[in-house]
Amino acid sequence: MWIPACAGMTRESIMKIHDESFQLHTERRCEMTDITKEVEIVVCQSEIEAGEVTVYCPHTTAAITINENADPDVLYDMTMTLNELIPQNRRGYRHAEQNSDSHVKSSLFGCSERIMVKNSKMVLGTWQGIFFCEFDGPRSRKVLVQVRGI
Amino acid sequence: MWIPACAGMTRESIMKIHDESFQLHTERRCEMTDITKEVEIVVCQSEIEAGEVTVYCPHTTAAITINENADPDVLYDMTMTLNELIPQNRRGYRHAEQNSDSHVKSSLFGCSERIMVKNSKMVLGTWQGIFFCEFDGPRSRKVLVQVRGI
Amino acid sequence: MWIPACAGMTRESIMKIHDESFQLHTERRCEMTDITKEVEIVVCQSEIEAGEVTVYCPHTTAAITINENADPDVLYDMTMTLNELIPQNRRGYRHAEQNSDSHVKSSLFGCSERIMVKNSKMVLGTWQGIFFCEFDGPRSRKVLVQVRGI
Repeated sequence: MWIPACAGMTRESIMKIHDESFQLHTERRCEMTDITKEVEIVVCQSEIEAGEVTVYCPHTTAAITINENADPDVLYDMTMTLNELIPQNRRGYRHAEQNSDSHVKSSLFGCSERIMVKNSKMVLGTWQGIFFCEFDGPRSRKVLVQVRGI
Repeated sequence: MWIPACAGMTRESIMKIHDESFQLHTERRCEMTDITKEVEIVVCQSEIEAGEVTVYCPHTTAAITINENADPDVLYDMTMTLNELIPQNRRGYRHAEQNSDSHVKSSLFGCSERIMVKNSKMVLGTWQGIFFCEFDGPRSRKVLVQVRGI
Repeated sequence: MWIPACAGMTRESIMKIHDESFQLHTERRCEMTDITKEVEIVVCQSEIEAGEVTVYCPHTTAAITINENADPDVLYDMTMTLNELIPQNRRGYRHAEQNSDSHVKSSLFGCSERIMVKNSKMVLGTWQGIFFCEFDGPRSRKVLVQVRGI
C-alpha cells in the first residue's frame, strides 16, 4: 500500500506570520460560496514560501469546508442533504432563534480549514476549492486568513 | 463580494512552542463543556504573541468543537440533534461496548480545533466558545493544548 | 473541573518544515484504512522534535479522520452508520456521477487532520489511529504529510 511519491524535503528559517481578513455577503439561508481566489490572494501577498494557511469563520451558524468546485450540482446536493438530515423545524428545539439546525451544521463541517503552502502557493487537489458555508443567511460575514511558515 | 477588512501584516521571529494539558470530569453520557477559559489561561502563560493554539482531545469517543457559548439551549439542541441522528441503540452495531454512536460523533465533530492568536489573545468570534464534547460519559478526560508562534 | 496535568513548557528555535507524500490503493466503495505507521515514518524522517504534523487528502470524495484502531468492528459500525445516514441513492441528487453522498461524507469528516509532535513522536491517545476514509472507491489515492516545528 505504501508508495512514497516524492523524496521528503526539510527547510528551515525564521518563522513568518501574515494576517488578513475579508467580508462577504450571503444571499440565501443556506449556500456555499467559493472563496478560493480570495485566499490565494492573501497567500500571494504574504510572501511566505512554505507552511500553512488557516481559513477561519468567526461565526457559529456558518462554516468553512473544502470540496469540489467544478460542478455546481455538487454544492446543491450537499446543501440539500444537510437540510434533509437536519431540518430547520425539527421538533423540540429550545433555542428561540429558529437556527438550532445552523449551529449543528456549523460544528459538523467545522469553522475552519487549513491548506498547505509550497512554493508560495496553496496545495489543493485538482477538484478542491475552499467554501464559505452559510447556514443562517442572508447575512454579512467575515473570514479570517492567517499564513504561517517560512 | 471581496471587501478587504484590514491591511495584511507580516511578522517574523524565532518560533516558539508551548505545551500544556488539563483534565476534566464529565457528568453525563453526552454533554458539551465550555473550556474556553482553560485554553485562554494556557495562551496567556505561553507568552506567544502571534500564531495558533491547538486544542486536542486524545480520546475516540469525545470531540472538540467551537460553537455558541451564550445560550445554553443551543448546546441542548445540538446534543439532542446528534442523538436523534445517531442513536446509541442502532440495529446492526458489531462493536460490543455500546458506544459505536460515540465513535461516529467523535469523527463528525473532530477531535481537535485550532484558534488563531493575535496580540497574545485567542481570536474568537463574538459568540464563539471552545467546547469539550463528551459522547460516552461520565468519564475522566484529558485535553492537550499547544501554542505555536512567535 | 480544571486539573493541570503537567507544567507548561516553552521552547524556541528556527522553524523547520518537512514535506512528504504517499499513495494508497483502496479496495471497496467505502472503507477506512489505518495510515498511522506511514505518518509516523514521515515524522521520524523529518527530525523535527516539537510541533505539528498535517495529514491531508487532496480528494473531494475521501477524508482523513482520527478514531479507534483497536477493534475493527468500530470501523465497520462507523462506515455502516454513515451509509445509512447518507445513502448513495438518495432521491433528488443532481450531480451525475452517483457520488454526491461521497462529497457530503468528505466534508463531514474533513479532508485533513493534525497531530501534535513532542520528543520527535506523534502524540496520539491510547486508542487513536489515523485513517484514510475512502467514500468513492476503489481508487488510487494520495496523502500529503507536512511536519512543521522546531
